[in-house]
Amino acid sequence: MNTIEKRIEELYAYQPYRTSPPDLDAFWERVKQLSSNESSFASRRSERETLFHGVNVYDVQYEGFEETTIHGLYMVPQLKSLDKTAPCLITFPGYTGGKGDPEDYAHLLLMGYAVFAVDVRGQGGDTGNRLPMEHGGVKGWITQNILDVERCYYKAIAVDALRAVTWLSEQLEIDSGRIGVIGGSQGGGLALITAAMHEQIRLCVADIPNMCHMDYGVMHSTGSLSEVADFCRRFPEHMVAVLRHLSYFDMLNLSDRLHVPLLMSVGLKDTVCLPEQIVPVYRSAASEIKRIEFYPFTGHAVEKAQRRIGMQFIHQYL
Amino acid sequence: MNTIEKRIEELYAYQPYRTSPPDLDAFWERVKQLSSNESSFASRRSERETLFHGVNVYDVQYEGFEETTIHGLYMVPQLKSLDKTAPCLITFPGYTGGKGDPEDYAHLLLMGYAVFAVDVRGQGGDTGNRLPMEHGGVKGWITQNILDVERCYYKAIAVDALRAVTWLSEQLEIDSGRIGVIGGSQGGGLALITAAMHEQIRLCVADIPNMCHMDYGVMHSTGSLSEVADFCRRFPEHMVAVLRHLSYFDMLNLSDRLHVPLLMSVGLKDTVCLPEQIVPVYRSAASEIKRIEFYPFTGHAVEKAQRRIGMQFIHQYL
Amino acid sequence: MNTIEKRIEELYAYQPYRTSPPDLDAFWERVKQLSSNESSFASRRSERETLFHGVNVYDVQYEGFEETTIHGLYMVPQLKSLDKTAPCLITFPGYTGGKGDPEDYAHLLLMGYAVFAVDVRGQGGDTGNRLPMEHGGVKGWITQNILDVERCYYKAIAVDALRAVTWLSEQLEIDSGRIGVIGGSQGGGLALITAAMHEQIRLCVADIPNMCHMDYGVMHSTGSLSEVADFCRRFPEHMVAVLRHLSYFDMLNLSDRLHVPLLMSVGLKDTVCLPEQIVPVYRSAASEIKRIEFYPFTGHAVEKAQRRIGMQFIHQYL
Amino acid sequence: MNTIEKRIEELYAYQPYRTSPPDLDAFWERVKQLSSNESSFASRRSERETLFHGVNVYDVQYEGFEETTIHGLYMVPQLKSLDKTAPCLITFPGYTGGKGDPEDYAHLLLMGYAVFAVDVRGQGGDTGNRLPMEHGGVKGWITQNILDVERCYYKAIAVDALRAVTWLSEQLEIDSGRIGVIGGSQGGGLALITAAMHEQIRLCVADIPNMCHMDYGVMHSTGSLSEVADFCRRFPEHMVAVLRHLSYFDMLNLSDRLHVPLLMSVGLKDTVCLPEQIVPVYRSAASEIKRIEFYPFTGHAVEKAQRRIGMQFIHQYL
Amino acid sequence: MNTIEKRIEELYAYQPYRTSPPDLDAFWERVKQLSSNESSFASRRSERETLFHGVNVYDVQYEGFEETTIHGLYMVPQLKSLDKTAPCLITFPGYTGGKGDPEDYAHLLLMGYAVFAVDVRGQGGDTGNRLPMEHGGVKGWITQNILDVERCYYKAIAVDALRAVTWLSEQLEIDSGRIGVIGGSQGGGLALITAAMHEQIRLCVADIPNMCHMDYGVMHSTGSLSEVADFCRRFPEHMVAVLRHLSYFDMLNLSDRLHVPLLMSVGLKDTVCLPEQIVPVYRSAASEIKRIEFYPFTGHAVEKAQRRIGMQFIHQYL
Amino acid sequence: MNTIEKRIEELYAYQPYRTSPPDLDAFWERVKQLSSNESSFASRRSERETLFHGVNVYDVQYEGFEETTIHGLYMVPQLKSLDKTAPCLITFPGYTGGKGDPEDYAHLLLMGYAVFAVDVRGQGGDTGNRLPMEHGGVKGWITQNILDVERCYYKAIAVDALRAVTWLSEQLEIDSGRIGVIGGSQGGGLALITAAMHEQIRLCVADIPNMCHMDYGVMHSTGSLSEVADFCRRFPEHMVAVLRHLSYFDMLNLSDRLHVPLLMSVGLKDTVCLPEQIVPVYRSAASEIKRIEFYPFTGHAVEKAQRRIGMQFIHQYL
Repeated sequence: MNTIEKRIEELYAYQPYRTSPPDLDAFWERVKQLSSNESSFASRRSERETLFHGVNVYDVQYEGFEETTIHGLYMVPQLKSLDKTAPCLITFPGYTGGKGDPEDYAHLLLMGYAVFAVDVRGQGGDTGNRLPMEHGGVKGWITQNILDVERCYYKAIAVDALRAVTWLSEQLEIDSGRIGVIGGSQGGGLALITAAMHEQIRLCVADIPNMCHMDYGVMHSTGSLSEVADFCRRFPEHMVAVLRHLSYFDMLNLSDRLHVPLLMSVGLKDTVCLPEQIVPVYRSAASEIKRIEFYPFTGHAVEKAQRRIGMQFIHQYL
Repeated sequence: MNTIEKRIEELYAYQPYRTSPPDLDAFWERVKQLSSNESSFASRRSERETLFHGVNVYDVQYEGFEETTIHGLYMVPQLKSLDKTAPCLITFPGYTGGKGDPEDYAHLLLMGYAVFAVDVRGQGGDTGNRLPMEHGGVKGWITQNILDVERCYYKAIAVDALRAVTWLSEQLEIDSGRIGVIGGSQGGGLALITAAMHEQIRLCVADIPNMCHMDYGVMHSTGSLSEVADFCRRFPEHMVAVLRHLSYFDMLNLSDRLHVPLLMSVGLKDTVCLPEQIVPVYRSAASEIKRIEFYPFTGHAVEKAQRRIGMQFIHQYL
Repeated sequence: MNTIEKRIEELYAYQPYRTSPPDLDAFWERVKQLSSNESSFASRRSERETLFHGVNVYDVQYEGFEETTIHGLYMVPQLKSLDKTAPCLITFPGYTGGKGDPEDYAHLLLMGYAVFAVDVRGQGGDTGNRLPMEHGGVKGWITQNILDVERCYYKAIAVDALRAVTWLSEQLEIDSGRIGVIGGSQGGGLALITAAMHEQIRLCVADIPNMCHMDYGVMHSTGSLSEVADFCRRFPEHMVAVLRHLSYFDMLNLSDRLHVPLLMSVGLKDTVCLPEQIVPVYRSAASEIKRIEFYPFTGHAVEKAQRRIGMQFIHQYL
Repeated sequence: MNTIEKRIEELYAYQPYRTSPPDLDAFWERVKQLSSNESSFASRRSERETLFHGVNVYDVQYEGFEETTIHGLYMVPQLKSLDKTAPCLITFPGYTGGKGDPEDYAHLLLMGYAVFAVDVRGQGGDTGNRLPMEHGGVKGWITQNILDVERCYYKAIAVDALRAVTWLSEQLEIDSGRIGVIGGSQGGGLALITAAMHEQIRLCVADIPNMCHMDYGVMHSTGSLSEVADFCRRFPEHMVAVLRHLSYFDMLNLSDRLHVPLLMSVGLKDTVCLPEQIVPVYRSAASEIKRIEFYPFTGHAVEKAQRRIGMQFIHQYL
Repeated sequence: MNTIEKRIEELYAYQPYRTSPPDLDAFWERVKQLSSNESSFASRRSERETLFHGVNVYDVQYEGFEETTIHGLYMVPQLKSLDKTAPCLITFPGYTGGKGDPEDYAHLLLMGYAVFAVDVRGQGGDTGNRLPMEHGGVKGWITQNILDVERCYYKAIAVDALRAVTWLSEQLEIDSGRIGVIGGSQGGGLALITAAMHEQIRLCVADIPNMCHMDYGVMHSTGSLSEVADFCRRFPEHMVAVLRHLSYFDMLNLSDRLHVPLLMSVGLKDTVCLPEQIVPVYRSAASEIKRIEFYPFTGHAVEKAQRRIGMQFIHQYL
Repeated sequence: MNTIEKRIEELYAYQPYRTSPPDLDAFWERVKQLSSNESSFASRRSERETLFHGVNVYDVQYEGFEETTIHGLYMVPQLKSLDKTAPCLITFPGYTGGKGDPEDYAHLLLMGYAVFAVDVRGQGGDTGNRLPMEHGGVKGWITQNILDVERCYYKAIAVDALRAVTWLSEQLEIDSGRIGVIGGSQGGGLALITAAMHEQIRLCVADIPNMCHMDYGVMHSTGSLSEVADFCRRFPEHMVAVLRHLSYFDMLNLSDRLHVPLLMSVGLKDTVCLPEQIVPVYRSAASEIKRIEFYPFTGHAVEKAQRRIGMQFIHQYL
């Protein structure tokens, strides 16, 4: 057993404490109610010109949590037999990113999958954020309203993401029984959340996901959870409440709801989404088909080899 | 002439282009209208317990731009003769900071000045930000709604700051003819803005101020203006509009409105508010009494010596 | 004129000395001879399985300079009318990279272009380097045999690249009258070299290219040319010869051979391929159709906006 | 138990070896002898002009260890009843700092406390250092004469600090039964030393103190103890003696002498005065009233919240 | 037991897994065959002018592994009695270095030792590298041909080094019964390899050596083994083979062949050749006379004190 | 003219202002008086055991400025003809260093030169510093007593260095008509000072010397002069005096006293002793034989090639 194998063995052996809030189920039941019915929120789509042959591209807008309009990019490959529908992947960006351009998803389109790429509110796409900020804070989005679990940013983006799945499942071009979710970092965290919470998701690829073992991340991560650390540093009187509110969104407390085929990956040098955060979530996921890839020398990045493995996993299970 | 003197001489010789928008006066006339009348916005104050002897401390809330409640801290030294009023200093924090605690202003209280310390919305005090964000963006506050000069963050905080002066000038404990403004970095920028725009301000101490020669800062600063650079990097199609909108708030275009006694300072090693930004504003300020201090070896910090000089300047001119 | 415009104006005004060696033409005539005739070197291609619909993917091997086998990836979209041929793009990786995977080029395939992605010898693809190293040196590939211009690394990769174009122009699936070259950084440098030296190239997109004003880069670049600096630091007695040998490959001396439609881009914060290196080459390029994009806040990276502009440029001119 | 609680639990469980020298008591008996009697050393004070109302400010000079004149700043609030004396705080600066200005202590003066702020020799105040350096060394003050425990820097500053307390306790304006000591980092270490060694100290606030578990700090600290590491790196033959000499000043060996009300604080991200250094000292302190505050996300800094807690602790117990 | 002693105790207690390949002996038998007989490879030497009095300096060239000409520098002090021969030290440079100049070895010459300083192929001396690179890779030399243990870089430099000893032992000026090997970092690794594998070596000084517990280094080192990590990051499919091939050259698997007097040293702050790599090799070395020096505050450097200890060790045992 | 040549041309064209104090000559006359007569200060030497053959090694102590005992290392090669004396080099260490060990000078001994290596007071050798520090300051030695030019550190080390030359010139083993001085960085600065001020010096090798154009260095250097910048940052009221006192020791004001053969070197990437500091001193040096070497890619280091050039320069001119 070499040094790398030993490190992985220790990761599997690491047993974090769980800190589920008692009303966890009730909380998520309410969130799901907000998101499960397409008629509960407005939406529209409009076709966009494209340089791509054989692909239709649409700009999508739908109403997210509390009146913010969320922007998405919906791309559908033209199938040869007109009566067929396409399987579809929904995806969310990494922290600070946006839904991107059609060219970012060309490889999935060429595989025959429709793709729905959705902004995360306020971050680097076209989507603003109309959720009022009710107290002072730190740079970044994560700690917005973190003192009120019912109106905090994590809840808002969870509702936004679940509504995206609901919207997508109603589109005629796609096969609503073959929707998968894919993403890295924040996109991986939202992939896990939607896979756990939305019944239409049938496959999940979560690379180097955040939203896992979050108290560990608050202590150690150099990524978005460091904003939580900074918030608590500035307002130490709120630390207990903040950590409790995070626990509603911590996949460590939700992994028993993961049942779909699941692919995860982790970089052993990742200081943003640390292995100690990700591996316990993977271990406790209820999925029968699950697989994790370790990249011993990779930091917070998805290697090309992992992108390839993800494509094969989708090809096999969706 | 040694190397340091030569550097200062070159700074004085630097002539930036000015880029005033044609409707600059009209714009600021509207902003001043929003802020000049205390009856136009709600406010309240409540006394707070304190460990300080001979000082009354009040928590203040007033309505800022578009329904955000701004928090302030109002501290009044008890004067020996009951029929007298105190001179007063208003102050704003540096970027990411908050109004702080009474102990941050104890030295001014001991000098016999009342102090009104005011949050900047959304940043590290108690004050939230209810201004909806209408498009995606980057980390930080500066670029919020930067595509709409009438609803952008800089306008919001300008209104907030001017209303703070208006509120203060109505308080009975103070001598409304002896209000000065003081601050460093962002607080220095807001000091300059309020001194230029609010007639009640009679003295201005602006250490290492931002909001000066802002296109230069967008290109070179490692501070808050780097958020503007990051925004333009991500949305290059908006760069021209962004720079035009900034020009409304650039003290380079407003320095001719500075008439009160003015103290400024600059660190020649400052990479946040660079000397090339600050010196041209100082040079063009219309104040008859003006003074600038150069700190050849200081970065973005206010040295103790400068704090002392500021205290003396206030003592002399307010 | 704001600070950014002033910076760009100064870049256009910068006039570097040129240092063309007297036998420059003869040197390149010999290089072209080595590369212009497909029968002068062996090659083979074999089809690879792919997850992509409607695309044929081939692994290609051909003999590069002095017996090194170069690996390439050749991808051809299946056209609807069987008797038509596709336009094609050839591309080379950035320094330390490799030819990559088909998914890296899916956007170009979806636009209807065949793509030929070619390794650079020794770097991070499958291609080794059988050119013996005749003296000691520094980490990296650039300085290999730099003391012998006839057997140095830059010449080897130039021959490899030109042979790739020759090979490609003989493939039946493509329209040999519509071959463009595209690349960033080292890939941009090789795009410029091949566009200048191979008559089959009809369009060139060179983002943040290296191999421009190379003595400036040796002095200032933090990228691959810093290996040359390190070599000269270690062997100062060879500096004059090294700089002379570089001048054979410096696009500053070759830009008058650029006649095809040309798109370039530059980041004003780039410390690897600096604006002072790139702009003079752009200015002196002989192309009638030429365009350069400035990214004032970007370092050594190709922004998504520039990728989009590149796609449109290809769509328009190839 | 979340990650932060687990970290704190582990800190409490950490049991360092103690390395008390056998003659520790005798050593400190001699040091106390040098410092306990005001008549044993010269001193004088002179009033300084001030901008503060109701405060008298004095420049103080007294003779420290071996003929160095130590400078202090003595500030006394004018009490309403003339026959009363003020409680008083003595304080020492962090490493490289100086006694500062009256404005640094205005908050304590407003609370009704006199303050005596004292330089540490050679560092950034007005106080020189006439102790001859008897051997070569490294940058900084800590290792001066570290090979001779009777004439080393730590002993010198301990004598200087104890004499400051003695001098203060003789001043007529203050209540010598209500003297507290307060400081951060080096100032916290000297607060602990004086509280342990001078019977006039009745309360101690030591934020992020140094001089705790010093061999651990020599190995791991990035602060002043890294000078000791650098000294030992350069003169490895002296390491054993150096560590032995440090043990005379290590609060781990002196904490059983702490009996006064004690407030300490520690940042879990502090790399200068590490939690492993501070917590064991706190745990073993003999004080009946003791309290420690943990700042999980703070490096080597005293947060505003902690300053506030310190003010309340002083208000309650002094 | 202080913190430093505890750290050293833990290092002694660390028990890494060993991963010897089954054909280790056979592999090295073949390597030794390639190197043991001077007649099996060509060589020549030529005298060089020198500023040194009483020293003959020769440039040496000999044929290394697979036709690469290795350069060495052979320096012989003129002995008073003409019929005597000198003891001799052979040495190899640290990674990226070269054989250097006579002045680098003047202290050993003044001690009466002949010195043979030998390049490592491709690195910063005069020696090239004609071994063809059979696959793509990363910057640096270490991973060349790492997929083929029979033609990989480590094997090549092992053969080069063993042939250097063989060549040296045939020179008439020296006493072939008194050859020692000395080096630091890579030079220390090659010192260990040659001491383990060449019977003519009678003493070994290996400061901060690499090639120890290499899987640990691949995971943690910031030095040359990070190239292996980078290679595996880029080509994860090859990691198992790469680690197996390294194990042939890992001194952890070869330390039982060390029988000569052995001096090693280690810096406890070394992140290139970490203590966890070096101490287990020292502990398991079979040498009867062995000594290790710990430098608690030193990174990847050989302190002057250690150079002095090395000179004394050579003086005593060679 | 390439980029490097252009940079060097600009350096030659740079004309700094000179700021000689009016009493410069008188000041140095007094300094020379203190140092010129060996009988004016005590000294002794004692032989040390050595591993070197044919070299006598002595520990030397002599009285430096104001009662500090300076330590030196005096090494004399045994000459074949007993009635001959050796030429000799005196040398001083770089900042923070010490006189080192005989092995540091073995190459000079092998060339037939005696060597006298002398500590700089307080720094990393055996030499302490009994000069009392009369005011507070910053880390490091440079600013000690900088407010009193007659008792400041620079004067002290100048006297120490000149006395070292005087002592050396009286030793019987050496040829007092063939004394050269050599050093790098601080050692180069002291080489220039002694060459300018002591008539016994007949050759000077000053690599990357400090003490040149010092106001420029205070503004820009990251080396020892940054201590002066830090001092002035902390005590801005003293800046004018500090700069005036430095001008006594600035080689820019003393270069007309350099008449001996002079070799200098400079790294164009040096941020400690910047090219703008060194080149003007070289240009204005009065030496008939003078030479400067430029290292375009070197920071604050002396390359091996320059060491070799220095050896040849000494061989030729001393």
